[in-house]
Amino acid sequence: MRIVLIGAGNLATNLGKALFHAGHEIVQVWSRTEESARALADVLKCASTTELKEVENTADVFIISVKDSVLSSIASSLKEGREGQLFVHTAGSMPMDTLPFERRGVFYPMQTFSKSKEVDFSVIPCLIEAKREEDLQLLKTLALTISDTVYELDSVNRKYLHLSAVFCCNFANHCYSLGAELLKKHGDIPFSVMLPLIDETASKLYSMSPREAQTGPAVRWDTNVIEKHLQLLADTPDMQKIYELMSKSIHHD
Amino acid sequence: MRIVLIGAGNLATNLGKALFHAGHEIVQVWSRTEESARALADVLKCASTTELKEVENTADVFIISVKDSVLSSIASSLKEGREGQLFVHTAGSMPMDTLPFERRGVFYPMQTFSKSKEVDFSVIPCLIEAKREEDLQLLKTLALTISDTVYELDSVNRKYLHLSAVFCCNFANHCYSLGAELLKKHGDIPFSVMLPLIDETASKLYSMSPREAQTGPAVRWDTNVIEKHLQLLADTPDMQKIYELMSKSIHHD
Repeated sequence: MRIVLIGAGNLATNLGKALFHAGHEIVQVWSRTEESARALADVLKCASTTELKEVENTADVFIISVKDSVLSSIASSLKEGREGQLFVHTAGSMPMDTLPFERRGVFYPMQTFSKSKEVDFSVIPCLIEAKREEDLQLLKTLALTISDTVYELDSVNRKYLHLSAVFCCNFANHCYSLGAELLKKHGDIPFSVMLPLIDETASKLYSMSPREAQTGPAVRWDTNVIEKHLQLLADTPDMQKIYELMSKSIHHD
Repeated sequence: MRIVLIGAGNLATNLGKALFHAGHEIVQVWSRTEESARALADVLKCASTTELKEVENTADVFIISVKDSVLSSIASSLKEGREGQLFVHTAGSMPMDTLPFERRGVFYPMQTFSKSKEVDFSVIPCLIEAKREEDLQLLKTLALTISDTVYELDSVNRKYLHLSAVFCCNFANHCYSLGAELLKKHGDIPFSVMLPLIDETASKLYSMSPREAQTGPAVRWDTNVIEKHLQLLADTPDMQKIYELMSKSIHHD
């Protein structure tokens, strides 16, 4: 397919590369800054621009991958002269109807992207949505060229999926961070000591639900250990509060 | 080495097998129930008993791997007739001095064990401690026969390590559980959709600290998304409270 990429951030970069390697023709990259536009266009062997009015008028799909806060205004600027074209955005928490186009949709690859780290796109789930049935089929076909896991999901349920990802990724990672802080302050053991445990905890989910996989003092409701742990956290009341709330939540789960 | 195993639970089973496969002689297994004692003794090709007074009088090391709540009383029952023998326990949160023996120590393999799932012991960190220097060396030698990662750690710092593990394992897993709950209630997407994200979040820790790896609305302090998420959680106040507390804690990290 002929694709125009609006944006050159982490997600746009990773998505653009995956589409390019799958054999699609990226015809143009737009970015606010010339440096980003050029850098990505070089990799994708295509044209670049920093002017929205110079964006191509036709393509099989226009993929807008920009910050949530500017999505609506950038989309509006692209409307004139591109009636009848298919526009999709890549934002997990933004409704499809943020886009002011008749042919609109969402193409959300759910992953935590960093520009420096190349990702294997084939294992990344793609959540798709479209206003028109034929566009949904087009997005599905496109998604399956780069990912093994493609689901249709409407805007309301996608919000919850995004929220679920905040728990599974950001909040789980913060638990690692709090664990790392404790380790740093007490004894001389590097955080790498926790990696096998962290890996095993994640790996268990391939054979059981997180609820079934739960272990430790909270699920056993071992109040003796819990009390001792709360005492150890007496000088960090925020962490103590998190310990208490998480333990109660595990106990009631 | 000649080893006596007191206990036949998840940890004792996994540890016993690892020691056996490393070429050590497990001379005897004690368990409260005959069934457990026999089952493990069969695998380790050794004798079994359910009577503490029938436990061997000599061995290179006696490993007590029982519930925290009965550790002290079982250890006391073993004291008579075994003076001069080395006893260690395997409990992360119990001080070494819980053991009433002159030659005492701790041998704590830090992992989340399930009886059904065989583990690769070589990647499991072993934390060791001993009252006497020569016993510490003996435990180190023993630990290195089954694990690539062996650290010495005293009882006070081991408490914090155990607490850190609660954050990295139990609390992170509870974040998965809360995420799974959200997904179950909204839309028809299986929890497996989260596994690549969860794996990537864990895998990032091999190249950066959890703090550096953090992404999402809380670290960006995107109050627009955070407010929307809090609204989505309005009907589950406990989860809403956890969302709020975790987001603030990430923001202040």
